[in-house]
Amino acid sequence: MSSEETFAKLCLAEKPAESHAVKSLVFKPKTAKTATPVPIVVVALQTTSTPSPVIAQATALKDPRLARDELFKSFFNCDTAKEFTLGYLPNATTEFKLLIDQNLAALDETAVLQLNDTLFIKKSDLCQHLSAFESYKKLVDFSQEVKKEEKPKKEKTDKKEKAQSKAALEDAKLIGITVDKAKDFPGWYSQILTKGEMLDYYDVSGCYILRPPSYAVWENIQRWFDDKIKGLGVQNAYFPMFVSSRVLEKEKDHVEGFAPEVAWVTRAGSSELDEPIAIRPTSETVMYPYYAKWIQSYRDLPLKLNQWNSVVRWEFKHPQPFLRTREFLWQEGHTAFLTGEEAKEEVLQILDFYAGIYEELLAVPVVKGKKTEKEKFAGGDFTTTCEGYIPQTGRAIQGATSHHLGQNFSKMFNLTVENPKGPEFPKVYAYQNSWGISTRSIGVMVMVHSDNKGLVIPPRVAQFQAVVIPVGITKKTSDEQRHHIHESARDIESRLKKSGIRAFGDYNDNYTPGWKFSQYELKGIPIRIELGPKDIEQGHVTVVRRNDARKYSVKVEELETRIPEILDELHDDLFNKAKELYDSHRVVINEWKEFVPALNKKNVIIAPWCGVMECEEDIKESSAKKDDGEEFEEDDKSPSMGAKSLCIPFNQPELKDGQKCIKCDRAAIEYCMFGRSY
Amino acid sequence: MSSEETFAKLCLAEKPAESHAVKSLVFKPKTAKTATPVPIVVVALQTTSTPSPVIAQATALKDPRLARDELFKSFFNCDTAKEFTLGYLPNATTEFKLLIDQNLAALDETAVLQLNDTLFIKKSDLCQHLSAFESYKKLVDFSQEVKKEEKPKKEKTDKKEKAQSKAALEDAKLIGITVDKAKDFPGWYSQILTKGEMLDYYDVSGCYILRPPSYAVWENIQRWFDDKIKGLGVQNAYFPMFVSSRVLEKEKDHVEGFAPEVAWVTRAGSSELDEPIAIRPTSETVMYPYYAKWIQSYRDLPLKLNQWNSVVRWEFKHPQPFLRTREFLWQEGHTAFLTGEEAKEEVLQILDFYAGIYEELLAVPVVKGKKTEKEKFAGGDFTTTCEGYIPQTGRAIQGATSHHLGQNFSKMFNLTVENPKGPEFPKVYAYQNSWGISTRSIGVMVMVHSDNKGLVIPPRVAQFQAVVIPVGITKKTSDEQRHHIHESARDIESRLKKSGIRAFGDYNDNYTPGWKFSQYELKGIPIRIELGPKDIEQGHVTVVRRNDARKYSVKVEELETRIPEILDELHDDLFNKAKELYDSHRVVINEWKEFVPALNKKNVIIAPWCGVMECEEDIKESSAKKDDGEEFEEDDKSPSMGAKSLCIPFNQPELKDGQKCIKCDRAAIEYCMFGRSY
Repeated sequence: MSSEETFAKLCLAEKPAESHAVKSLVFKPKTAKTATPVPIVVVALQTTSTPSPVIAQATALKDPRLARDELFKSFFNCDTAKEFTLGYLPNATTEFKLLIDQNLAALDETAVLQLNDTLFIKKSDLCQHLSAFESYKKLVDFSQEVKKEEKPKKEKTDKKEKAQSKAALEDAKLIGITVDKAKDFPGWYSQILTKGEMLDYYDVSGCYILRPPSYAVWENIQRWFDDKIKGLGVQNAYFPMFVSSRVLEKEKDHVEGFAPEVAWVTRAGSSELDEPIAIRPTSETVMYPYYAKWIQSYRDLPLKLNQWNSVVRWEFKHPQPFLRTREFLWQEGHTAFLTGEEAKEEVLQILDFYAGIYEELLAVPVVKGKKTEKEKFAGGDFTTTCEGYIPQTGRAIQGATSHHLGQNFSKMFNLTVENPKGPEFPKVYAYQNSWGISTRSIGVMVMVHSDNKGLVIPPRVAQFQAVVIPVGITKKTSDEQRHHIHESARDIESRLKKSGIRAFGDYNDNYTPGWKFSQYELKGIPIRIELGPKDIEQGHVTVVRRNDARKYSVKVEELETRIPEILDELHDDLFNKAKELYDSHRVVINEWKEFVPALNKKNVIIAPWCGVMECEEDIKESSAKKDDGEEFEEDDKSPSMGAKSLCIPFNQPELKDGQKCIKCDRAAIEYCMFGRSY
Repeated sequence: MSSEETFAKLCLAEKPAESHAVKSLVFKPKTAKTATPVPIVVVALQTTSTPSPVIAQATALKDPRLARDELFKSFFNCDTAKEFTLGYLPNATTEFKLLIDQNLAALDETAVLQLNDTLFIKKSDLCQHLSAFESYKKLVDFSQEVKKEEKPKKEKTDKKEKAQSKAALEDAKLIGITVDKAKDFPGWYSQILTKGEMLDYYDVSGCYILRPPSYAVWENIQRWFDDKIKGLGVQNAYFPMFVSSRVLEKEKDHVEGFAPEVAWVTRAGSSELDEPIAIRPTSETVMYPYYAKWIQSYRDLPLKLNQWNSVVRWEFKHPQPFLRTREFLWQEGHTAFLTGEEAKEEVLQILDFYAGIYEELLAVPVVKGKKTEKEKFAGGDFTTTCEGYIPQTGRAIQGATSHHLGQNFSKMFNLTVENPKGPEFPKVYAYQNSWGISTRSIGVMVMVHSDNKGLVIPPRVAQFQAVVIPVGITKKTSDEQRHHIHESARDIESRLKKSGIRAFGDYNDNYTPGWKFSQYELKGIPIRIELGPKDIEQGHVTVVRRNDARKYSVKVEELETRIPEILDELHDDLFNKAKELYDSHRVVINEWKEFVPALNKKNVIIAPWCGVMECEEDIKESSAKKDDGEEFEEDDKSPSMGAKSLCIPFNQPELKDGQKCIKCDRAAIEYCMFGRSY
């Protein structure tokens, strides 16, 4: 009898009325290639999150990552991660560590645990099973904060100091970022988002909670863009989130692009639906049957509708906050024109607006261009894009796309009007565009500007642009003085608000100014305005910029003019710094031998190209470092990822006569931007 | 062999690659009770809509409605509507009419038709089957417009006139409402919504498309309410639309209220999900686990979040645009406080905002009050509501609700803070509220104000408040004069826009002013501004109100002050007219014998009540006309519907000493408002 079968005998035959869901995960630490890795088995309540740093600390092993299928095979003789149960533990081919979640250990011995869809076990029986591995076993409090390395000189502290240092740690727990942006970019990204209260993880994988600071960024983007498109005559509407399979599948190329990620509703209450209904991954096929119905005459053109909504793409790749999520917020504009010229003009106009969102609001530089045939929107004629750049990873990221659909969809959906020249001329199929920008833009903004102190939010989209903090209040300060300082600060706050600055004050005496400074640095408030007794005396305030701690002294009477100027300068400085990094990492390369080395230096590359799809695939293939047996996370620094074509930039270097393609022997027809990308 | 089996033999054994979906519907016309009804079988492409008026016209039968299960039994010996196929036709126990969709008839003889999930048939075989009923059969063009009854004097028209009258009809087809609000309220409602371009029907049942004019109403509501709640310190956020069953089912009373209507995603791409995921019907259980996590100290209270989103409630009752839809847009606010007092204060503040949306924006009067225990929000402490009234049907309609949840959810989700009095005191469970208003409000607005000419949209929420139309241009008008009139009109339009009026002009010379007037009356534009040669001479414009055709002459130099005044007067007049109707149909009744007669006169009733739930149920039961064998649509005038408790109005008549309950022998404790309702 196999060990799994033995284990299964311990399990309950029937599903109990109540149970606690339990996960069993296997991690592999970073190990020298020549060494045998020690797997880490974590058994925890489903509701307990088991961060990698805690596992690292509990095991004293480096950088544990979820193990891949191959490792399940070699460690436990179990074919895949999915099949793995605790019944495989006795198979172990190597020593392993076993971490038990303290919350799980705290349950009653009679509690029933649910291990997967079919396995239920009494807690006491599970303990019995695990007791065989007592020597490797450890109870872990996964909610603990990972301790920073303590400096040796701190070792000798008396009890009082210890109590204080504990408090300091508790403060640090509330406010501090413990991961270095340069050393662990994904860990840093996750920490600043959660500790900065932009976002929280959610119990449905791939879905995230947008907390007020991030939703406010989105609202500011919405307001700006909505005004712009309404100026072009676009109207907002709302189409249903559901789409029947018949309609979804109308445009074949299009549905092929989306089908693997479509979520299907098959049940309502306790009734199975007659036919499953899809949740929109995008709304072309939702909308265009109605466009065909509504547009009866060329006078009904152009039709320009937009909606602000959420769409669902059930990706199975590793999700990432903002960048790759199963539900995301966006706007999708869908327009129909009588002529291709009008449509093409709009495509570019909208792309300019998208570049405006990135550059003028988010302070993120982008490169505008056209996607290659391989990378364009499924079912469209051509796709224009603005492409951003994340300096830490050297990877490009698609910012937003504006598609010209040509007549492909209008032919599918029979979106025609009578020829304006007269009924004797053939009917005209409308020319269509669709265009969208999503909350992904918020992630790009965070990655580009934020630092090891926390978030840096550009002022034009920040929920709050300025925090007013009274300073210089000590034990010696009289109540009257204190009152005066507070009142003066409140006055500053109210003047700022009246002049349209999104300001607030923090007048809580229970926290020190220093604590507050860290707090609002973590949250990325663009400027803080300090006001102490001396400032009041001298009739000014001290303004400190979040991004670089640069200080200004501003006369109180000039508040209303200077603060907006300071915010604008801050915006410009953020943008220029990011632009310098992008510009200096966007290199023109004409020789293939320089291509991969340049990529490895975190560059995106502008290279002469033949325009042939096979060559594009060859470039991707040839620029990928082969997997050398070391696991990697795709979202890590990804040295092994090949370079995709990002866009054919509108701004083209001059092509020399007889210039060959970077990769093949064909003549180059244009410069194309390539890079590793999100 | 039964006739169904014979029919099944005609069908294909295998699902073909391509097929056309076909529906077969059975309608029953309105018939004297003593007469035997003649069922109408409609066979049509799924994509063809088969409006009741067209069926009525094609069969010369009155008011056909979808037949109920009982009738399938008596007509075709088929147990339910769902089981019915064309195979049952030979079973007919009575003569019937058979209408075939012209679009279906136009298909190739070899086309394959899909009749239900499993039945596929070649068109030629279906025709063979139906040929047995040739005598009852008729081909129908369902896209035709129902002809108005032509007046006899029009009978003698020559060919030219006929051509003209055909054109007139085509115009009417574009713009006219053909159903009388007083005679067929549901038919009228559906027509003004679709022809007024507020909304369109969608191919997933219970879902509708919000076109720009209705979405603009929603945007105006959003802007107003969003400003109000932000003034209270509420912040916007976005939580995922998906919720795991474990979390959804956490609060038992609550989930019982929603479970029958929850839509479940069970599949993504081609993979079955490990566990089904629900789409939120509301977000209490989505949000509160995170509230519990985020709120660590009483200093984190109050927490006030709101989201603008869509929710899904898969109702199986007859859907109605805006009023009962499977997906709808709303906002949901969720707040948590340290004390019950603060929470209760907010509940009422929000209810006032909701009443403000109805009264100040939509010009719809409401009655504020508290729901009874029976009608309150599942899982909450108490529910406050504002209740509207639809004069045509005499039915009340719930406008929006603001719930005080007490500590019920905070106990379930362990949302606690340390007692501010000190750690030696017990922990405090937060006091919570939730509150929401949905796009249903738009339906109420439409029902209350609109008329037989089309929509009437109150000016504060209308997408466009004024349309400028040049008039008095005849064949004799010189090009120069015409140009001058147009330029003057454009000037008026631009001045209005500059002063913040949502105005547009219609300068299309291909349509007559009269045609334009009807067009914008249909769409409910609050005022039209006419400008002709005489107006220009006299330096004024003619303003005509949509609601009552009242005319004003406004001096051009006073445009910027007078137009806003006229719009405000229009708002007030709409509101006052609706208020008079509501006030005069809200009657205080103290004797049970007057209760049902008052209901039948389209009143809502304010009656003394004992406060006992059984009595409330008894009132509903006793005020329902029993089904007398005549079918009715619930959404029709519904004479058989019992009176529900609507609310205990805050504004209470004085209760006399010793006043008994309207229904039972117990003492009355308060006045309660009862009525038939949506």
